Amino acid sequence: MTAQPEQVQINEVVLRDGLQNEAAFVATEDKIRLGDRLSRTGIRRLEVTSFVSPKAIPNLRDAAEVLAGLQRVPGVRYTALVPNVRGAERALHSKVDEVNLVMSIGEQHNLANMRMTCAQSLGQFAEIMRVMEGSGVFVNGTLATTFGCPFEGRQSMDRILWGVEAYLALGIEGITIADTIGVANPRQVEKVVSTILDRHPGLPLTLHLHNTRDMGLVNALAAYDAGIRSFDSALGGIGGCPYAPGATGNVCTEDLVHMFHQCGIPTGTDLGSLIEISQALPDVLNHAVPGFVMKAGTSDRLYPFPGKQA
Amino acid sequence: MTAQPEQVQINEVVLRDGLQNEAAFVATEDKIRLGDRLSRTGIRRLEVTSFVSPKAIPNLRDAAEVLAGLQRVPGVRYTALVPNVRGAERALHSKVDEVNLVMSIGEQHNLANMRMTCAQSLGQFAEIMRVMEGSGVFVNGTLATTFGCPFEGRQSMDRILWGVEAYLALGIEGITIADTIGVANPRQVEKVVSTILDRHPGLPLTLHLHNTRDMGLVNALAAYDAGIRSFDSALGGIGGCPYAPGATGNVCTEDLVHMFHQCGIPTGTDLGSLIEISQALPDVLNHAVPGFVMKAGTSDRLYPFPGKQA
Repeated sequence: MTAQPEQVQINEVVLRDGLQNEAAFVATEDKIRLGDRLSRTGIRRLEVTSFVSPKAIPNLRDAAEVLAGLQRVPGVRYTALVPNVRGAERALHSKVDEVNLVMSIGEQHNLANMRMTCAQSLGQFAEIMRVMEGSGVFVNGTLATTFGCPFEGRQSMDRILWGVEAYLALGIEGITIADTIGVANPRQVEKVVSTILDRHPGLPLTLHLHNTRDMGLVNALAAYDAGIRSFDSALGGIGGCPYAPGATGNVCTEDLVHMFHQCGIPTGTDLGSLIEISQALPDVLNHAVPGFVMKAGTSDRLYPFPGKQA
Repeated sequence: MTAQPEQVQINEVVLRDGLQNEAAFVATEDKIRLGDRLSRTGIRRLEVTSFVSPKAIPNLRDAAEVLAGLQRVPGVRYTALVPNVRGAERALHSKVDEVNLVMSIGEQHNLANMRMTCAQSLGQFAEIMRVMEGSGVFVNGTLATTFGCPFEGRQSMDRILWGVEAYLALGIEGITIADTIGVANPRQVEKVVSTILDRHPGLPLTLHLHNTRDMGLVNALAAYDAGIRSFDSALGGIGGCPYAPGATGNVCTEDLVHMFHQCGIPTGTDLGSLIEISQALPDVLNHAVPGFVMKAGTSDRLYPFPGKQA
């Protein structure tokens, strides 16, 4: 406890996972403005969009325009979700630094979400890897529903390790384990993370959490204590998945950063800026957002003593 | 990790800390119905009310009527907050099993909340202890703002230990450390709890958390891991303190129980019943409540596969 705790990196997913399920389309210029502000807060990865069919997710139909409009900040990896070969080609054309592939650990969720079996997803990823070859673009793979599937429930540790190893066998460089529907608990997170990192020391492993049952922060800290140093989160805690029943908001960026900072764990981000940007979100979205610290202020906030007030 | 984790006890404070700050008076019969339902869920302590002046907290002006109306369930301790000698006498007359005294660790918060210095509070508690003598009623003392004061900020460990020891010197049997304004973080909670329990092994120590910055659950688990086995919480996560600026809802009973159960930590309570009772709260209060699991369902919830639907 005497050494300085190791720093974590924050990956902002509000533009993709945050916005994909919004009822109203968020204007391209609003997305660009939000992305540009976020790029300057010290976040390390900005998931900008998804190169899916505009019919599947109309809110992200401006994928290429958003990527073209952003002012790239050195040190930030601009990444996009890519569901197929066509999407990978479009992402490369848009000069992303990283693509993010997604398959669900739960076979049924993969069928519902991607309309493919897991074997078909992996076959397609092999094709995508050929497209990516020599591009220099980092390939990350997300394992959705790692901590539970809305149709099948809890997934076995063997199944999770199978997913990790299938990704690594394809040459995927980084892996994100996702609690897509917010069912993970801290003891489970500790076990899954430590098991994966024991088997694959040094693997660039990211945790993607949702706060559906208010366990986002407790899961994040359990994962940190088990060795994860990279976290996805969404400003204001917005988000949800159209193909994952029961999924609600992502773990909230500024609440996550606030917890880490309060615990003495550096994140390299400017919490004050994150809170300011989050406080502007309700005007962009035309609704309130779930974040806590953007409403309450930080734990350091002091109030004037009432007796001294007029 | 092979032994069965130790059970925690859940103390329900919704009737007191939950309701005291509600904009509208909750009918006495609604309070009694809620208390009676909660008494049968496996909770171990029910904080029913506060014997304060009806002018100070009009919502709790029916303290004696609520206590008289409840059907006492064996194994549940019915407790009331008591601010002074008159309150203690009223509580004894209402046949409580326990009284709960409150002083703030932060001198300024005690002045704002109780209109007394800490020394004056302790003097008054000495008088209350004389009133309680021979009654057989358990005396618990709460240390408010243990983890931070809205006017003074973070409190020192020495100051916290001073509070614990001042209570024990008066003959107070159990102690609650309260994060009144929801500023605690899990590393701090771990340190405060382990320091108190190292000095006072076997002390009946309770943790009272608010979820103001979404750290309620992570703080609860940190406290469990540091040795606390008794937790205050409020159904639906409602609550707030009229004299603590920035204070919002208590940690939510069913979300807390859900996390413990998911982690394999028994609570002795029936989560299904707690969720049902919480789902009825918005109708009693005429507004939504902050709880998560009452909306999302438990982590075990399964959905039908969409392809199999009509």
